[in-house]
Amino acid sequence: MIHFKAIWRIMGGLLILIGVLMLPAVTISWIYQENSLPILISATISLFIGLFLFFFIEKQDELIRKREGYLIVTLSWVFMTGFGMLPFILSKEITSFSDALFETVSGLTTTGASILTDIEAMPKGLLFWRSMTQWVGGLGIIVLTVAIFPLLGIGGIELYVAESPGPTSDKVHPRISETAKRLWYVYVGLTLAAAVLYWVGGMTLYDAINHALTTLATGGFSTKNASMAYYDSAFIQYTAIIFMFLAGTNFTMIYFGLMGKFGRVIKNDEFKAYLIGVLVISLVIFFPIYMKSDAGAELAFRKAAFQVVSLMTTTGFVSDDYTQYGQGVTFICFMLLFLGASAGSTAGGIKFIRHATFLKNTWLEFKRIVHPRAIVPLIINGERVTGRIINNIMNFLLIYLITFVIGSLVISLMGYDFETSLGAVATSLGNVGPAIGNVGPVDNFAFFSPAAKVVLSFIMLLGRLELFTILILFTPFFWRAN
Amino acid sequence: MIHFKAIWRIMGGLLILIGVLMLPAVTISWIYQENSLPILISATISLFIGLFLFFFIEKQDELIRKREGYLIVTLSWVFMTGFGMLPFILSKEITSFSDALFETVSGLTTTGASILTDIEAMPKGLLFWRSMTQWVGGLGIIVLTVAIFPLLGIGGIELYVAESPGPTSDKVHPRISETAKRLWYVYVGLTLAAAVLYWVGGMTLYDAINHALTTLATGGFSTKNASMAYYDSAFIQYTAIIFMFLAGTNFTMIYFGLMGKFGRVIKNDEFKAYLIGVLVISLVIFFPIYMKSDAGAELAFRKAAFQVVSLMTTTGFVSDDYTQYGQGVTFICFMLLFLGASAGSTAGGIKFIRHATFLKNTWLEFKRIVHPRAIVPLIINGERVTGRIINNIMNFLLIYLITFVIGSLVISLMGYDFETSLGAVATSLGNVGPAIGNVGPVDNFAFFSPAAKVVLSFIMLLGRLELFTILILFTPFFWRAN
Repeated sequence: MIHFKAIWRIMGGLLILIGVLMLPAVTISWIYQENSLPILISATISLFIGLFLFFFIEKQDELIRKREGYLIVTLSWVFMTGFGMLPFILSKEITSFSDALFETVSGLTTTGASILTDIEAMPKGLLFWRSMTQWVGGLGIIVLTVAIFPLLGIGGIELYVAESPGPTSDKVHPRISETAKRLWYVYVGLTLAAAVLYWVGGMTLYDAINHALTTLATGGFSTKNASMAYYDSAFIQYTAIIFMFLAGTNFTMIYFGLMGKFGRVIKNDEFKAYLIGVLVISLVIFFPIYMKSDAGAELAFRKAAFQVVSLMTTTGFVSDDYTQYGQGVTFICFMLLFLGASAGSTAGGIKFIRHATFLKNTWLEFKRIVHPRAIVPLIINGERVTGRIINNIMNFLLIYLITFVIGSLVISLMGYDFETSLGAVATSLGNVGPAIGNVGPVDNFAFFSPAAKVVLSFIMLLGRLELFTILILFTPFFWRAN
Repeated sequence: MIHFKAIWRIMGGLLILIGVLMLPAVTISWIYQENSLPILISATISLFIGLFLFFFIEKQDELIRKREGYLIVTLSWVFMTGFGMLPFILSKEITSFSDALFETVSGLTTTGASILTDIEAMPKGLLFWRSMTQWVGGLGIIVLTVAIFPLLGIGGIELYVAESPGPTSDKVHPRISETAKRLWYVYVGLTLAAAVLYWVGGMTLYDAINHALTTLATGGFSTKNASMAYYDSAFIQYTAIIFMFLAGTNFTMIYFGLMGKFGRVIKNDEFKAYLIGVLVISLVIFFPIYMKSDAGAELAFRKAAFQVVSLMTTTGFVSDDYTQYGQGVTFICFMLLFLGASAGSTAGGIKFIRHATFLKNTWLEFKRIVHPRAIVPLIINGERVTGRIINNIMNFLLIYLITFVIGSLVISLMGYDFETSLGAVATSLGNVGPAIGNVGPVDNFAFFSPAAKVVLSFIMLLGRLELFTILILFTPFFWRAN
C-alpha cells in the first residue's frame, strides 16, 4: 500500500513554496504597471490549495519509503507544472493548453525551449515568472540529487554527487541536510554574483536578474528574442560563459574551490573530463567558425566557447547561429546535446561522470579480454567502482538512447522531418533548448502540433528526472509491491 | 610474441580458396564470350601466392591462441579484400582504388552497398564474382560464429549460436567441426533451393544463381539496376522474402526444423522475437503503404514485408522506394538498420538476441529496484544468463552506437548532410545496403569522395567482425601481452 497521505502533505508544502515564489513576479508587474491580477490569483490559488493539503490532511506516522519517493519526485514536477502554468493561462498571454504546458515544463525542467514567437512583447511580470520556473527547477534538482536520488539508487551516479575525491573518503559533510544547505548557498550566491556582473556589463537590472536566474539553473530562457546574441558586449558574453560553466560544475567542487581546496577539485575525474571536454570541443569548432566568418580570433573563440558551454551544460542560450558553419559543426553541436555537464549541478542530460565511467570501463574491457584471468579494476576519483554501478550506468545510457529513438519515432510519425525530429527530442531529453533542423538556434517550438508539444513535454520531464523515476511508475512491479 | 607463421599459413589457405572460387566466374565469362583474362589472372595470382604461403612457410608447432585468433579474423577479411578486388581493377571496369575497395568490402561483408551506377552494363563474369564475394563472406561468417568467436569470447552471444533451447542443454552436436558442417549444408542447400525457385519464378538461370548467392548471404547485390523491383512477379518476391527470412534465422534452428524438431524452434527466444518483430513491423508499415499508394492489399503487404525483412536481415534488396510514404515510414526503415536478425545466421548488425537480452534485463532491472533484496534472474532460452554476459551485451550495444556516432561525425565533417551521414554509416555498420537521405533505396554510393568510401569500407568491416575483433588491435594491451 502506498502512503498517499504523506505524499499529499509534501505536495501541499511544495504548492506553498510555488505560491510564495510567484509573489516577486506580482511585485514586478506592479513596478511596471502591468495587470498583476493573473499572477496574484495564481499565487493565491497555489497558496490556498497548498495550505489546505498541508494542514488539513490528517497527519499520521506514515513512513516515506522508496516507493513514495518515486511518486513524490514525479508528482512534484506534475504539481509544479499544473500550478506554474496558471499565470500564463489566466493572463491569456498563452492561450492554448499545450503551449502553456510546454512553456512551463520547459521552465521547470530547466530546458529553455520556447513556444513564444515574440518574447519581448510579453508582460515583464510574466516573463519574470517564466525565468523563475527555471530557477525553481534548478533548486528542485539540487534537492533531488542530494536528498532523494541517493535513496532511490537510480542512474548509478549517486556516489559521485556528494562524495569527495581521493581515497580518504571524507564527505563534504556527513549529514544530508548540511550538504543540501551548502549547495543551496552556492546556488544562491552564484545567482546573485551573475546578476551583479550582468548588470555591470550593461544589462538592465530586470534583464540581469532574469538571465542570472536562468543561467544558474542551466535553463536558458532569455527575455530577448535573440537570446544572448542581443548583447554584443564581450563582458556579458564571457560572464555568461563562466557562469554557465560553473552552473554545470558539481556544486560540491565549487564549495571546495571557495574553501580554497583546489587540490580536491583538480583531482576530481569528472571535473577534469568536463573541463578538458569544454576546451577541446571549443577549439575544434573554433577553426571552422574562424575560417567561415569574418570574425576575428577573439570573437570566433568567444562564439565557439559560448555555444559549446551553453549546449554542453544544457543551458541553451545562443549567441550565434551554429548551423551556418557547415555540416560538421552542426553535427558536433547535435552531439553536444548528449553530453550534459556534471552530476551534482543543475545541468540535465547524461553527464560526464557517466560518459567517463563507461569509456574508461570499455577501455579496460579490452584489457580484460586480452588477460581474462587478471583482475582489472575500474578506478574513478581514486576509488574502485563496483560492477553494480557500472551496470547501472550502462543501463542508464542505453535507456536514454532508447527513449531518444522512440521519442524521435513518435515525432517523425507526426510528420516532422528526420533532422527536426531527432533534434527536438535530443534537446528535450537533454533539457538543453535549441537543436538542429527546424528547431535550430534561431527557431522556436511554436510550429509543433499540440500533440507533439505534449509528447516533447513528457520527454523533458523524463530527462530531467533521470528516466527511471518516471518509467518505473509504468511497470507492474511498482504498483504490485507491498 | 605473436605466432605469425601460423597466421601466414592460414592466409595462404584462404587465398587458395579465393582463387578456386574465382574459377566459376571465369567459366561464366567464357560462356558469355566476354574477356575472361582479368578474372583468370586474378585467380592465378591468388592461387600462386596462396600456395606459396601455405607450402613454403616453414611449418612449426606454433599454437594458435586467442591473440592469433583476432589477427586471423581481421587479416582474413583484409586478404580476401586485397585479392578479391583484383578482377574489378584488372578489367578496368572499376578504375579507382577506393571504388574497387568499397565494392569488394561491401561484397565480402555482405553489405550490398554499391558504387556502380549502371550494374547491367557490367560484364556477366565480373558481376558473378561480385555476387560470389557476398556468398564467400557469408560462408566466412558461419565459420567465424561457430569456430572462432566462441573462442575469442566477444560480443556476449557466443552461447546462443550453437546451443539448443530449453534447460536440457543438449547441443546440436558437441564437436565444432560437426556443427560447422551441418550449418554449411544448410547454407549450400538453401542457396540451391533459392536458385531453383528464382529460376522457376522466371529469372534467367544466371540471374537466379546470382540472386540466390546474395540472398543467402544476406548480401543484397543484384544484377539489376532496380534490384528486386525489376521483377514484378509475386512468386519471385515472396521467394525472396522467405529466403531472406531464412538467411536471417539461426541456422541451427533451420537444422532443427529440417529434422522435424519444431518444438525446439518455437521455444527459442530469439526466433520468437525475430518472427514477431518481422510480423509486427510489416503490419505497422503496411497501413501507410496501403493508404498512400494505389497498391491493393496484397501488393501493399508484400511491399511492406519485403522491405522489413530485407532491412532487418541486413540483406538490402529493395522492391520499392520506402522513403515515399512519409517521415514515419522512413524513420522506421532507418531504425530497422539497427536491428539485425539472428545470431548464427549470415545477417550483420546488432541481432535480436542482444536486443532481447538487454530489453528483458532492463524490464527486470525495474523489478530489482523495487525489490532490492530479491534475486531476479534473467532467463533466456530457459537458461539463466550470467551478469558477465549481460555486461558484455550492454557493452557491445554501446560500442556499436558510439561507432555509429563517431562514423557519422567523420562523414558529416567531410561535408555530407545530416541524414545522408547517419544513413550511410548506419547501413554500413549494420551491413545492410540501402539507407535514407542521399543513400536511399534508389540511390547508390558513387557520389562519395574516395576518403569517405575508405571510411565507410572500414565501418563495414568493423560491423561485420563484431567491432571488438578489430578494435582490440588498436589497444596497447593487445600488442604488449605475452
